[in-house]
Amino acid sequence: MTNHTDLESLFNPKTIAMIGASPTPGKWGYFILLNMLKAGFNGQIFPVNPKAESILGFKCYPAVSEIPESVDLAIITIPSALVSPVIDECAACSIRNIVLVTSNFSESGEEGAALEDEIVAKAEKYGIRIVGPNTMGIFSSDSRLHALMPTLMPLHGSISMFSQSGNVGVQMMDYGLHENLGFSKFVSSGNEAQITCVDYLKYFAEDEATKVIMGYVEGFDLDTDLLEVTKEITLKKPVVFLKGGKSEIGTKAAASHSGSLAGSAAINHAVFRQAGIVEAMTSLELIDFAKSFANSPLPAGNRVGIITRGGGWGVLTADACEQSGLVVPPLPETLIREIDKILPEYWNRGNPIDLVATIMNDPLPACLKMLVEWDGVDAVIVLGAGLQNFSYHYADDLEGPPQLIETIKFIKEYREAGSGKLDPNLVLIADLVKQTGKPIISVSMGSQYSHKEFMKTYSILSFPTPERAVGSLQKLAEYSQYLTKNGVLTG
Amino acid sequence: MTNHTDLESLFNPKTIAMIGASPTPGKWGYFILLNMLKAGFNGQIFPVNPKAESILGFKCYPAVSEIPESVDLAIITIPSALVSPVIDECAACSIRNIVLVTSNFSESGEEGAALEDEIVAKAEKYGIRIVGPNTMGIFSSDSRLHALMPTLMPLHGSISMFSQSGNVGVQMMDYGLHENLGFSKFVSSGNEAQITCVDYLKYFAEDEATKVIMGYVEGFDLDTDLLEVTKEITLKKPVVFLKGGKSEIGTKAAASHSGSLAGSAAINHAVFRQAGIVEAMTSLELIDFAKSFANSPLPAGNRVGIITRGGGWGVLTADACEQSGLVVPPLPETLIREIDKILPEYWNRGNPIDLVATIMNDPLPACLKMLVEWDGVDAVIVLGAGLQNFSYHYADDLEGPPQLIETIKFIKEYREAGSGKLDPNLVLIADLVKQTGKPIISVSMGSQYSHKEFMKTYSILSFPTPERAVGSLQKLAEYSQYLTKNGVLTG
Repeated sequence: MTNHTDLESLFNPKTIAMIGASPTPGKWGYFILLNMLKAGFNGQIFPVNPKAESILGFKCYPAVSEIPESVDLAIITIPSALVSPVIDECAACSIRNIVLVTSNFSESGEEGAALEDEIVAKAEKYGIRIVGPNTMGIFSSDSRLHALMPTLMPLHGSISMFSQSGNVGVQMMDYGLHENLGFSKFVSSGNEAQITCVDYLKYFAEDEATKVIMGYVEGFDLDTDLLEVTKEITLKKPVVFLKGGKSEIGTKAAASHSGSLAGSAAINHAVFRQAGIVEAMTSLELIDFAKSFANSPLPAGNRVGIITRGGGWGVLTADACEQSGLVVPPLPETLIREIDKILPEYWNRGNPIDLVATIMNDPLPACLKMLVEWDGVDAVIVLGAGLQNFSYHYADDLEGPPQLIETIKFIKEYREAGSGKLDPNLVLIADLVKQTGKPIISVSMGSQYSHKEFMKTYSILSFPTPERAVGSLQKLAEYSQYLTKNGVLTG
Repeated sequence: MTNHTDLESLFNPKTIAMIGASPTPGKWGYFILLNMLKAGFNGQIFPVNPKAESILGFKCYPAVSEIPESVDLAIITIPSALVSPVIDECAACSIRNIVLVTSNFSESGEEGAALEDEIVAKAEKYGIRIVGPNTMGIFSSDSRLHALMPTLMPLHGSISMFSQSGNVGVQMMDYGLHENLGFSKFVSSGNEAQITCVDYLKYFAEDEATKVIMGYVEGFDLDTDLLEVTKEITLKKPVVFLKGGKSEIGTKAAASHSGSLAGSAAINHAVFRQAGIVEAMTSLELIDFAKSFANSPLPAGNRVGIITRGGGWGVLTADACEQSGLVVPPLPETLIREIDKILPEYWNRGNPIDLVATIMNDPLPACLKMLVEWDGVDAVIVLGAGLQNFSYHYADDLEGPPQLIETIKFIKEYREAGSGKLDPNLVLIADLVKQTGKPIISVSMGSQYSHKEFMKTYSILSFPTPERAVGSLQKLAEYSQYLTKNGVLTG
């Protein structure tokens, strides 16, 4: 019987046979090799191709049996009709893991399904684990294994993801480049002929490098053990799922069971909630929520302090909090008196705290510290903390009338003088998170650039809009409450 | 009596006095001048500052009365206590428009409120129009008037916006740089001591350069004429509003009336709907919806065709359509038979159409054309249309083992060979929109870069996620239905 869940040698192989390696750019057997080369895979790669001497500098072998080393993982891209005998060859070489990229199996009809059954039967007999078929590949940061079809270098981090759609999975990682979203492991589960998302889930649950589990699920039935298994796991690690196929048409498109919209979406919501799964309603939420759990402590409760450089943004943030069940408590008299010493006489004396100030003699650090340390809030959202937005639009653009040039040079020098240094406000935010254990979420507003920079340079959880920050904080608070209710966290 | 709505000379002045112009970087009287210089204002600028000879190359004048030309607009940044006599000076020079950037008026308490009343009384007496006080400025693309506090160069286009929060307004324009969102006019309405958002609305309604009106509103009461006025305008032009202060705390933060959450949000929703206003629920939706109305025809109905390169994305798109009340009709037998000739035998034969194909012998153009031209759909969402994602991650990065370099050069050459040329698929999309009058919305997926490029190079309405595309299409369909119901469009 094949052990489906001890996937260590699958995700961190030392030797890989690339069966179907191709010297032709455009072929998947070329791109996957290119990606592994580019990523600098930690082990050895043996392309198998009887017609080529070498590909991308790797010596080629005419058959798996000719490879001089023992092989931990075979990646297969040859046409489906040729796959079955190759499984026998792999077994003869004691290969225990196969990533079967090849498509045209059960997803394409009866003939393919029969072929798929044949291969799975062989795999089970031989004790081989098969990812796919019809998978877009796997990824593991530890061993720098980038065995993916698209030319994509995902960021490394603590999130592990399985996806029942290859395209959704890889494009999440692609989008993650813009959101500074780092992955530990990824697998496109393909047709799940043998190894299923339940197996990946169990492995991610035990994997120490995995802090957050992220999944795109389409075809699970309510009577499988996915939900039972996940219910155990969510007591240990956050699990964020996006469910595709909730609508009638979506369900048909997912080639799954059919059902009414309201019914299936509501049932899905209920069972996710019961299992402690963090439910993303959109693809962007899947990224936002995974990012948040990977980059923030959990709040002890749902009370939020808001501090802002722009009044209107504070209003929108407070609106979003209240709409999602987070509480924005009024400031106590003692705190108001302390802040009176810092802000101009006419400040609003409320939460959100509107800084109503210029960037000179910045009141943000002192006010932020007081707000975060106040025991009346469990988390803080800070809007417009970074100063680096100052003139960033101009400094790279030396066009304009002559009298502008001197000013632009001044701005450029100002910016460059600061570029090596860390922004003290942002260092403070990161420190306050550590000291208090409370989440502090930044809303960079305006510039996508600085939104990513917040994450990358300062490890501060950051979003470009307040609504995205609030949506994520609400999920952190909800999960914290779930753990408390189940006795994992003490409130 | 001051004419409040003929704002042509305010938005398109030929001569500007900058009262409070400063030679000190960091002062608003410096930044506003810098912005106008950088933008290349079409008219003449006269800085007023008795202590400076010249600022940024502009000759300074000791007082408004010393300016040798007649002045269409005065921008004032001097402290609030000094403003009142300057209004008299402006009147003496027959200045009819003032942008009063100065704060510390009614927003800061009773004393400021009294000062504000005094100034408004003078303005009314003199027939002067005042924007603000406490405004972050105005912008007009026609005259290249960038009289804004932040160093920001908004993109030019057909959207005109007023904002009851300066920060929200300018940061929308900043964010618009990433979304290729172009503005015709913008005004931060400040305290609205005299000229109010109703006046701006009326002006934008008559302004031929304004195709879409966008507004951030906080403090309007249901008994003002804002809604009555807007109801007239929405029959002529789409009006997209984001309302801040819908929650109890948000309302307090907006220093406005108080009320229960559900009550005020629901009332807001109802009155907006009644007036034909397109309601954005988040700051990102405000941008998305304005962008959509500015860059797409209206669909005649709510039936959507979906075509995708990735199955999972099709599922998510169909889910989102159904959840928002859009219909994804099944394909008729005749159309299926036509597409049978193009796609592999095992294609899904449904809507969404999953292209299940490589990028060689691309089936997208033929399938897309058939889908758009089918009279069973009113709009089409196309996922993954662009080919330029191909290897874009690698071509700029020449790091890696030596055997990579040749390949990377190949990719670079491949990309550069295509860089001067237009992508035929995207040209086709733009053409099909023109030919059929149906909206075709692109979902670029993965790369933010290409999402913007779609808009910029091809004028194709594009989003990075399917849910954002669907949310916007739903608003286009809803507005189309509103116009039909009111007899403006014939269905």
